[in-house]
Amino acid sequence: MSDKKLSSSNTVWHHATITRDKREQLHQHKSIVLWFTGLSGSGKSTLAHALEDRLHKTGCSTYVLDGDNVRHGLCGDLTFSDADRKENIRRIANVGKLFLDAGVIILTAFISPFREDRQIARNLMQHGDFFEIYCNSSIETCEQRDVKGLYKKARQGAIPHFTGISSPYEAPENPDIEIKTDQLSLEDSVELLIQHLKQRGILQ
Amino acid sequence: MSDKKLSSSNTVWHHATITRDKREQLHQHKSIVLWFTGLSGSGKSTLAHALEDRLHKTGCSTYVLDGDNVRHGLCGDLTFSDADRKENIRRIANVGKLFLDAGVIILTAFISPFREDRQIARNLMQHGDFFEIYCNSSIETCEQRDVKGLYKKARQGAIPHFTGISSPYEAPENPDIEIKTDQLSLEDSVELLIQHLKQRGILQ
Repeated sequence: MSDKKLSSSNTVWHHATITRDKREQLHQHKSIVLWFTGLSGSGKSTLAHALEDRLHKTGCSTYVLDGDNVRHGLCGDLTFSDADRKENIRRIANVGKLFLDAGVIILTAFISPFREDRQIARNLMQHGDFFEIYCNSSIETCEQRDVKGLYKKARQGAIPHFTGISSPYEAPENPDIEIKTDQLSLEDSVELLIQHLKQRGILQ
Repeated sequence: MSDKKLSSSNTVWHHATITRDKREQLHQHKSIVLWFTGLSGSGKSTLAHALEDRLHKTGCSTYVLDGDNVRHGLCGDLTFSDADRKENIRRIANVGKLFLDAGVIILTAFISPFREDRQIARNLMQHGDFFEIYCNSSIETCEQRDVKGLYKKARQGAIPHFTGISSPYEAPENPDIEIKTDQLSLEDSVELLIQHLKQRGILQ
């Protein structure tokens, strides 16, 4: 490290010496964006947190982005208009990219209903850095569960543009993996994802 | 972990089990937001990267947010208007908070010229989670160095609202630490910060 004063006219601009590669070495695993998509109630957040639990216990550096930590903070200024929903996904994808660069396994759990927006997210990353996980559960099952009571409200017209009711959900055509969350147990779903991450060399 | 199907009507909603505390335990250090503020050319980015280098080599999980990774991504839609500069800092602060929660030592290197905006950033965090580092260098020195050639352009009127020339810089009144970057060497500046982090129990 140089001991020159910052103010020295001949000080070389200090470029970043710590790279994603070095951070991955420190964490002893590759980083990746695990992008969960699916209807409200399809189990995205549940599965993301269960996978994080498993990854953390094996020593991985992880973080989950979901409505709980993004809606009132980074995206607290956004409405549910089409333009704002698009901007919401754009910001989340960009934050995902920062965590990727930080060497963290980042899991995002948002409905992200539009193919175009998910493609924009994917295009931000290098090939192999973005892993789309489709939590596929029928709308009937999601509505029957209605964990947050949102479907009931949407049916009553209290929530405009509710995905699956009054706004479309565009299912992924080629997700990296599809989890039938209304058929597979949580434990098996996590195991399936772990096996995929091993196959792709993210985990050892 | 439950082996119930996600779709079971009696499935308990899976709350996050991995907390900041657990992530800090994994990383073996506390997380903190190190907020560098100062004029363009005062050495914020240089010092932040040098500190990151030192922290990384001692095994800390770190990340630097600066213009290089934020300007064209997360904040790529923002201009230099007053409102957008405010929004820029708001987003950076919120991303900093996410990294804090992720157990990472996050270093932000932005001019962040307005006290009010830095206060908003500080108020987002708990007491002790936000550490303001004032990179204090005279405008004469910054302009003389002019590493990026921005002062020259600003003097020519090519950059409106340039901090220190055509827009004010509100120096911190009570920074957690002030580094006189036109007097102290880079090595000594890093050492000073490391000592402060140890005193505050962030590092052991």
